[in-house]
Amino acid sequence: MLDEQRATIGRLGVDARIIGVVTRRHGRVYSPRGVDATMVADMVERGDCIGSPGASATPRSPGSAAAFIRDVTARRAAAARQGRLVVIETTPLDIARGQPAIGHVRAALDGGAHVITANKGPAAFAYRSLARAAERANRRFLFEGAVMDGVPIFNLVRETLPAVTITGFRGVVNSTTNYILTAMERGERFDAALASMQRAGIAEADPSFDVDGWDAAAKTAALANVLLDARLTPASVGREGIADITPQRIAAARAAGCRVKLIASAERRGGTVRARVCPVNVPADDLLAGLEGQQNAIVFQTDLLSEIAIVQRGSGLTQTAYALLSDLVAIGRPTGSVRRQGHP
Amino acid sequence: MLDEQRATIGRLGVDARIIGVVTRRHGRVYSPRGVDATMVADMVERGDCIGSPGASATPRSPGSAAAFIRDVTARRAAAARQGRLVVIETTPLDIARGQPAIGHVRAALDGGAHVITANKGPAAFAYRSLARAAERANRRFLFEGAVMDGVPIFNLVRETLPAVTITGFRGVVNSTTNYILTAMERGERFDAALASMQRAGIAEADPSFDVDGWDAAAKTAALANVLLDARLTPASVGREGIADITPQRIAAARAAGCRVKLIASAERRGGTVRARVCPVNVPADDLLAGLEGQQNAIVFQTDLLSEIAIVQRGSGLTQTAYALLSDLVAIGRPTGSVRRQGHP
Repeated sequence: MLDEQRATIGRLGVDARIIGVVTRRHGRVYSPRGVDATMVADMVERGDCIGSPGASATPRSPGSAAAFIRDVTARRAAAARQGRLVVIETTPLDIARGQPAIGHVRAALDGGAHVITANKGPAAFAYRSLARAAERANRRFLFEGAVMDGVPIFNLVRETLPAVTITGFRGVVNSTTNYILTAMERGERFDAALASMQRAGIAEADPSFDVDGWDAAAKTAALANVLLDARLTPASVGREGIADITPQRIAAARAAGCRVKLIASAERRGGTVRARVCPVNVPADDLLAGLEGQQNAIVFQTDLLSEIAIVQRGSGLTQTAYALLSDLVAIGRPTGSVRRQGHP
Repeated sequence: MLDEQRATIGRLGVDARIIGVVTRRHGRVYSPRGVDATMVADMVERGDCIGSPGASATPRSPGSAAAFIRDVTARRAAAARQGRLVVIETTPLDIARGQPAIGHVRAALDGGAHVITANKGPAAFAYRSLARAAERANRRFLFEGAVMDGVPIFNLVRETLPAVTITGFRGVVNSTTNYILTAMERGERFDAALASMQRAGIAEADPSFDVDGWDAAAKTAALANVLLDARLTPASVGREGIADITPQRIAAARAAGCRVKLIASAERRGGTVRARVCPVNVPADDLLAGLEGQQNAIVFQTDLLSEIAIVQRGSGLTQTAYALLSDLVAIGRPTGSVRRQGHP
């Protein structure tokens, strides 16, 4: 996407070159003059090691990804000092501790780089301390992709609702469970719906992460920590999954003019923030009841604007990639310039 | 609101003082050391002239509002040169030509001031030339309040979707007509629903502006000009109002699983943008069908993010005031600073 959108981001005054890639199982590559992203992606696709001879100056060098980040930020110390170094972090979430993503974010900031992650862990487990570290380093710590892919949530609040106080939110933030609940309304069985999500590559082989509400709880913690100044972790979010939802409950909800949705919500009341994820019978005329299949939405309660909702109607890898790109543009875009909106 | 939110915007690095107010029928006041906004609002409320002795250095001075803007920007030329002068424009829309708002915007930019308007006219009639004028002057021309009050639309796209191309949109953007259509579904008559909107101060005494779709057409032109790089005016938007909607049509739509909504839409196809406002039978499971009463929403079609929708669930004067405040913050906020999100 970076290559595809180079002209677009160029018009915004942003230019970027990939100088290093580190993977869990496919090696690493460092090349100050620029890594060919398409070639690297093709190699990973084929199962090759990206650090194989010819492709890299540091083939198969050992050590963790954090060590690689420390190494590269040290080599590029001048660029780091000028705020021109960005680390993009896309490890999967470890729901117990938020690692290794948190360590990667720290290593990046310690090395003077801005950091972008699509991982929910850093904001869900360690938002406050990482945000402080970023502030001290005068670097950005962005994570738009952590919730609803590239649909602006964190950027929406930060950039466009500066004087508004968010007092709470409720939303549908997990696609797998929403798809299963929608399928069950059509008469499909839980297992069949889950299996078709797995075949489509949307649900994990181990479905408990989605089905038991952990993914939604991690997103809820991240949202509450950032938008409501809470100090939650995924485990401190009240959580009930959809594994026990029966066809009878779905039918009874229908009969009562409702739809069963896995609702993530949080609310600030005075000094405390209460957050939870649980199946709710949502009245049919509620915005959240209307979300089919993989659609997601969050309704924000605010002090000055009453309620605002933002809705995602399609998701996928492109949207996740865009989340990273939009954060990159937020970092690289010249500030204070006056720019006309509109098409190229 | 500026006084009420002074602490909040102060934390964002924004401070502002009102130095002049000009009204159509209640005089004008200029006071470089600061105008007491609450006192001025109270005087207008009572029907007093705000330029009465003791309140102002230039009581009852004659001339148009544009002349007042030219006068004040000239007196405050030093502040203007430093980019510290902002003109906030809140005249009602003249649907034929977009004046006097366009003239006010030009006078402000000519005087070196940034300009904020809640009026749809400037963006609906003259977006391109005013945006160019602002660019040349290195000043901002903002109008978040023109569509859906303070809910971020233009700021949303500009600030959070920088690399996304909007290819079209559809939405419900006029509250009066949506309220009437909702009331008719409950069996109310068109006239009774309209009268209750008028009593609530939401519909104008002359309802044709809303009912015939002109308000929605002006918003559609503004959205299309800004987001789709169109060159429309309200008159070039295909337009059909709701005056001819019968209870029979509403009932027939219901029977077919639909709701009648006044839909504003535009689409870019190659070099041309087609825009229209007309009543549409929207399937009940469509997000736009679920909007009750005064709720508004816009669904954007994008290249990279599929569809995104933003929904406003409450509107009123507070929301309009917030639109102006959020634009003021966008102008005054120090750029390039790293700020942690969260509550005060």
